[in-house]
Amino acid sequence: MDVNADHFFKAAKLDTPRNTKDSKVGSNVTLINVMQLPGLNTLGISIARIDYAPLGENPPHTHPRATEILTVLKGTLYVGFVTSNPNNTLFSKVLNKGDVFVFPVGLIHFQFNPNPHEPAVAIAGLNSEDPGAIIIANAVFGSKPPISDNVLAKAFQVEKGTIDWLQAQFWENNHY
Amino acid sequence: MDVNADHFFKAAKLDTPRNTKDSKVGSNVTLINVMQLPGLNTLGISIARIDYAPLGENPPHTHPRATEILTVLKGTLYVGFVTSNPNNTLFSKVLNKGDVFVFPVGLIHFQFNPNPHEPAVAIAGLNSEDPGAIIIANAVFGSKPPISDNVLAKAFQVEKGTIDWLQAQFWENNHY
Amino acid sequence: MDVNADHFFKAAKLDTPRNTKDSKVGSNVTLINVMQLPGLNTLGISIARIDYAPLGENPPHTHPRATEILTVLKGTLYVGFVTSNPNNTLFSKVLNKGDVFVFPVGLIHFQFNPNPHEPAVAIAGLNSEDPGAIIIANAVFGSKPPISDNVLAKAFQVEKGTIDWLQAQFWENNHY
Amino acid sequence: MDVNADHFFKAAKLDTPRNTKDSKVGSNVTLINVMQLPGLNTLGISIARIDYAPLGENPPHTHPRATEILTVLKGTLYVGFVTSNPNNTLFSKVLNKGDVFVFPVGLIHFQFNPNPHEPAVAIAGLNSEDPGAIIIANAVFGSKPPISDNVLAKAFQVEKGTIDWLQAQFWENNHY
Amino acid sequence: MDVNADHFFKAAKLDTPRNTKDSKVGSNVTLINVMQLPGLNTLGISIARIDYAPLGENPPHTHPRATEILTVLKGTLYVGFVTSNPNNTLFSKVLNKGDVFVFPVGLIHFQFNPNPHEPAVAIAGLNSEDPGAIIIANAVFGSKPPISDNVLAKAFQVEKGTIDWLQAQFWENNHY
Amino acid sequence: MDVNADHFFKAAKLDTPRNTKDSKVGSNVTLINVMQLPGLNTLGISIARIDYAPLGENPPHTHPRATEILTVLKGTLYVGFVTSNPNNTLFSKVLNKGDVFVFPVGLIHFQFNPNPHEPAVAIAGLNSEDPGAIIIANAVFGSKPPISDNVLAKAFQVEKGTIDWLQAQFWENNHY
Repeated sequence: MDVNADHFFKAAKLDTPRNTKDSKVGSNVTLINVMQLPGLNTLGISIARIDYAPLGENPPHTHPRATEILTVLKGTLYVGFVTSNPNNTLFSKVLNKGDVFVFPVGLIHFQFNPNPHEPAVAIAGLNSEDPGAIIIANAVFGSKPPISDNVLAKAFQVEKGTIDWLQAQFWENNHY
Repeated sequence: MDVNADHFFKAAKLDTPRNTKDSKVGSNVTLINVMQLPGLNTLGISIARIDYAPLGENPPHTHPRATEILTVLKGTLYVGFVTSNPNNTLFSKVLNKGDVFVFPVGLIHFQFNPNPHEPAVAIAGLNSEDPGAIIIANAVFGSKPPISDNVLAKAFQVEKGTIDWLQAQFWENNHY
Repeated sequence: MDVNADHFFKAAKLDTPRNTKDSKVGSNVTLINVMQLPGLNTLGISIARIDYAPLGENPPHTHPRATEILTVLKGTLYVGFVTSNPNNTLFSKVLNKGDVFVFPVGLIHFQFNPNPHEPAVAIAGLNSEDPGAIIIANAVFGSKPPISDNVLAKAFQVEKGTIDWLQAQFWENNHY
Repeated sequence: MDVNADHFFKAAKLDTPRNTKDSKVGSNVTLINVMQLPGLNTLGISIARIDYAPLGENPPHTHPRATEILTVLKGTLYVGFVTSNPNNTLFSKVLNKGDVFVFPVGLIHFQFNPNPHEPAVAIAGLNSEDPGAIIIANAVFGSKPPISDNVLAKAFQVEKGTIDWLQAQFWENNHY
Repeated sequence: MDVNADHFFKAAKLDTPRNTKDSKVGSNVTLINVMQLPGLNTLGISIARIDYAPLGENPPHTHPRATEILTVLKGTLYVGFVTSNPNNTLFSKVLNKGDVFVFPVGLIHFQFNPNPHEPAVAIAGLNSEDPGAIIIANAVFGSKPPISDNVLAKAFQVEKGTIDWLQAQFWENNHY
Repeated sequence: MDVNADHFFKAAKLDTPRNTKDSKVGSNVTLINVMQLPGLNTLGISIARIDYAPLGENPPHTHPRATEILTVLKGTLYVGFVTSNPNNTLFSKVLNKGDVFVFPVGLIHFQFNPNPHEPAVAIAGLNSEDPGAIIIANAVFGSKPPISDNVLAKAFQVEKGTIDWLQAQFWENNHY
């Protein structure tokens, strides 16, 4: 096989602001994983740029196969993760430019830009060439086909009407 | 150190039906992990019995560090998991007694007993001595302290009032 | 590739008693591994049902690639494993219904049903999608071609005639 | 902690012939693992010298946590391993000086010196700092306490008297 | 143990330019590993900012326990790694702002800022909480105590005087 | 696939002295890895014989994917490895016949035969079926294409003329 330097390179334009206006949650994740950069195969690493609109967020999600370490390039972020059963403790922090935070593998986490006027930007490393991302709202309320509203009504301890309303939203992906 | 056979043994009474009446979701998970059975340390395995009331469920959850394989001992279960970004495909199946299903590491999954009159029981193996469990509803809406309702309203694309209502539920753990 | 829910499902009838009458050792192992359930590929887990006739046993064996955790569904089992060099300590226990025991990866272990009138049943989880099983008697005395009786006579410190007698037995597999 | 070159060094005299006359099986294994060489901790490797008397053998055994690669320094060896269920195929070979053979993790294997007049010597690498060794005959017939002769009689499909005779042998360890 | 959000956080000021003027090689690496951020323990990830003076470089080095993925935040970098025996092929590339490159675990690699007037900055993710760094020149010619110049003269196929001259340089660390 | 004993065997003649006269560094490494012995696939082990001419050496190198354990079969070796940043401590030792030393994964190490009249021989185990070898001098000064002499002059803090001289040597591989 003809392997060369181009297999280890991607002109990813991670320096360039992404469009966050078309995102309902006000964020845009650009992940460079093994699908974009074939030389990552078996090497266990990937990198992402995340853009946040004013008051935008990367909503609660998990990576089933990776821990994530993140640093803020621009703006401010309110970030957190929730520990597993039985405590469900929220570990949260306000990050300023240059701060670093880690989200352990498989835990639900989020980043929110609390600034109503300015965007924010972060860079993150993830220790898998294919970390996967499960956006909780999308996977629970926007799966195809949908999870039965009986199941979800009992899980969230609300009326089916509330679940139906949640399922009726337009579930987009903030990874473009 | 005085290691003996008792470190590899637990009188777990996995044959005995558990109470599911006091559970709002109608289920009860009995997990034998390294905290109950110290000989499991570093060995990468654990086992669980799950009891389901009629119409009870083990609500959508993930195991951050384990794949789970499950077989039905009694009754019927409607089970499923949702694949990660961008597809969010629901893979689901009705399981009868003796059927086997696998839930890959880190993916959101659930089991629901569709029978309005009869309980169901399953046995599951998990490939970690400490698999962890994240019940989605509890971690997202019942964390301590709570995640800001601003963050959740945007994540779930609903009014803050809906989020506040969800957060107002009593979030119990179905692992006793 | 067209992956769907059926790749993660097996109608394995693990609830149904197996035939143990045709087994010289009085047991029958039904293992659901990656060959039966292709979705297990790379996921590191499998599950088994084991049926024991009255006075039947799952004879001394090892799993070269898995630790096993077992619970008794029915009857009573006398189980044990032997530690490695230099101690060769037997860790054993009598298990009643609902008890749990763990057999660490690679160690020689067995289960025996001491009840002369009633069968026994166990369910086990193993942390490999292809754990492998080496039944000691079969591998040592029933290999094809046989191991030289010179080698075995010295290993077991007995006359060649004793080895030849052992090799003359009909070595069947208790996995159907 | 005061780590220095001595933690990575062992004056193991692996060049010096070992006594094989006092061994009933005619062999002597000198293993340098993490107990002898503390710098091996977490590094996943160990090394051994094995001496074989004329007609001596390293009897059927497994390493629960390591694959072994071996080369013959002196003499000739008849070596083999048996594959796992259901085939129990014996893969064997006569090795001359300088030949290399590999024994996959967890499989039963042996080495025998077929020469009635000359000793043999091998060097082996194992990919664990604590590979463990289970000598089949010792673990099955020489455990402390013994495995019930009921269990073993059924496992080996012979009379209890044969098992009692096997258990009555003096089970020594060929690792000094 | 009292674990809280601060164990997963570091006010690392990765947004702030580092001093590169005092570095003989014209670079400054700020690595956030498990020593700076204890919550990284066992999680297998770390992050670094690297500052390059005009014509500065991060000289040829390896990470014994990590693959590195890097993106350019500012300026231009000429980067490369050399494959292992027997080919020793140099895979190199000029990276502009926003480009991504990966350096596979254990391979010798470097980054050089070819711009004589402007600094450059990169952010890198590494898949170990303690990746280690071996700067080739420092380890070979600046070890304490030094490697014998006999050994190095033969290795580099030059006169001892050349080696002595190389060893006489002041070997500083570009990690502050 | 038709797997048989020959896939686990190699007539490698590791007992036979290799030619070291044609090697500029006075050594010859014979590595049996998965390319020579296909049965090693996924098993994580390999073995090597190393011959040293009088005053010959196996020059400073690393294995990107393996720890190495070595024993001296003949002669005397001065061996060492250098720890990573920031200490660059040389751990060295003189090994006599039968001594054992370990070189941790990814660290720069060497072996030198200090005897001006007699050859030396070592056997080594490595915990990868494809450990890789990076000879520092060859990779840094003999890559194809060469690393820019600007980069190397700054890295080694010498004039470009010195680098050009180093690059002008004939960089051979001591693995035949």
